[in-house]
Amino acid sequence: MNFTERLRSSQRNQNSLLCIGLDVDPQRIPNHLQAFPEPVLEFNKRIIEATYDLVCAYKLNLAFYESLGERAWKTVIQTLSFIPKDVMTIGDGKRGDIGNTSEQYAKTLFSDFGFDATTVNPYMGFDSVEPFLRDLEKGVFILALTSNTGSKDFQRLKAGGKPVYEKVASAAKKWNTKRNIGLVVGATHPKELRSIRKITPDIPLLIPGIGKQDGDLQASVRYGCDKSGELAVLNVGRSVMYSSAREDFASAARREATTMRDLIRRYQEEFFR
Amino acid sequence: MNFTERLRSSQRNQNSLLCIGLDVDPQRIPNHLQAFPEPVLEFNKRIIEATYDLVCAYKLNLAFYESLGERAWKTVIQTLSFIPKDVMTIGDGKRGDIGNTSEQYAKTLFSDFGFDATTVNPYMGFDSVEPFLRDLEKGVFILALTSNTGSKDFQRLKAGGKPVYEKVASAAKKWNTKRNIGLVVGATHPKELRSIRKITPDIPLLIPGIGKQDGDLQASVRYGCDKSGELAVLNVGRSVMYSSAREDFASAARREATTMRDLIRRYQEEFFR
Repeated sequence: MNFTERLRSSQRNQNSLLCIGLDVDPQRIPNHLQAFPEPVLEFNKRIIEATYDLVCAYKLNLAFYESLGERAWKTVIQTLSFIPKDVMTIGDGKRGDIGNTSEQYAKTLFSDFGFDATTVNPYMGFDSVEPFLRDLEKGVFILALTSNTGSKDFQRLKAGGKPVYEKVASAAKKWNTKRNIGLVVGATHPKELRSIRKITPDIPLLIPGIGKQDGDLQASVRYGCDKSGELAVLNVGRSVMYSSAREDFASAARREATTMRDLIRRYQEEFFR
Repeated sequence: MNFTERLRSSQRNQNSLLCIGLDVDPQRIPNHLQAFPEPVLEFNKRIIEATYDLVCAYKLNLAFYESLGERAWKTVIQTLSFIPKDVMTIGDGKRGDIGNTSEQYAKTLFSDFGFDATTVNPYMGFDSVEPFLRDLEKGVFILALTSNTGSKDFQRLKAGGKPVYEKVASAAKKWNTKRNIGLVVGATHPKELRSIRKITPDIPLLIPGIGKQDGDLQASVRYGCDKSGELAVLNVGRSVMYSSAREDFASAARREATTMRDLIRRYQEEFFR
């Protein structure tokens, strides 16, 4: 089954478009967990146990794991082992290099770690993305228009009347022969999200940058979903993970995640039912 | 001392613009090294011992180390420990993410591993690059025009009459208040290398993609150097590392590296003395 259908299936089974970003900063882990031999792992385990029925995906930003040093490798592998099979896992590395190098990155992410999907930076063009696309079951979210302020510097440059991020979306559409490509579009750009969804009506969109602003979330569901009200992957990170710094952090995370999932459902009802 | 001056000093002391890419594929290591507990480390050690007086820098592509799994971290740290202090080390990761994430990448590369420089992907804009720039001693080579065929897909798009890679060069110039920014320009684009050098006359240029083609190397020295015939970092990888697959691999690598260094010197004489 290609990645797009795997994701759709996960979203239907879980009845959720929510993705939780497990980008754990060791310094923000509740104090009482610091006594464990692997505080980050313990934190992830409890967050996953408290939320796995509420999400279609977890996203691990590799920067936060790399910075654990020697323990990085095992922490990723073991974190992934806590996640049920029908919930998608995204290794967020934004990699991209010449062919033989991207091959190495793809091997690490998909074969060694076993992520279901990854994020890829398009700047180096097709041959830098292609090695990630070889297995149709594995998803590749290509950066189009990111949520940060720097997205204006190059992504919004106009080339032949069209912004670069739309060129990326058009290229992604052309490259998507195996139905395993998606795009990353920040929730901070609802108007542009809409135009990207028009260019690529039927691919997954990974949408980070949702905080607690109700407005962004509403627009992200409305413009980020396909016709069936699916294939938007709405990522929340810190607002769920750190909703409490005390012993109740896992139940606080569950409460926050439930609120988000239900809000998303409400907007799905409003715009697609 | 800022990175640009550190690099210049290394190039003068070593009398070399050559950089060797230690992008080791475990399957291409000579057979007789496979008996060692850490074949990649043993290979790197011997290549470094045989070439450290011939180069201004070594570049480690992180993809090849990540794919070693649990041994990755130590292999990087120990490889770097074999390299003399006045030879620059470049952690080639092409990272780039939103601010708090780029901070983590910068910490890993510069503080934990202790690389002197890194490569960064500009697609996400200034705030994705800025965390790498905070220490003026540490160099940041921003991808401008890469050596692969996919460089045409987005890097060469014209925006307001100028290709994207020139926009990146102009931005790099503007951001370079600490004199620690450089650019990556593939040796496969000599004409464009020349135009980039005109935009940024006094910053380091990391130039990969040199094989055994004499032509590219000549143009890369001619157009890649600053006025003093310096600040081009000419990277060779596989042609040095794998010049022999037998027991003589280290001396074969030395021979190949010497040839390259001397050719570069000859072109420096020709164009700058």
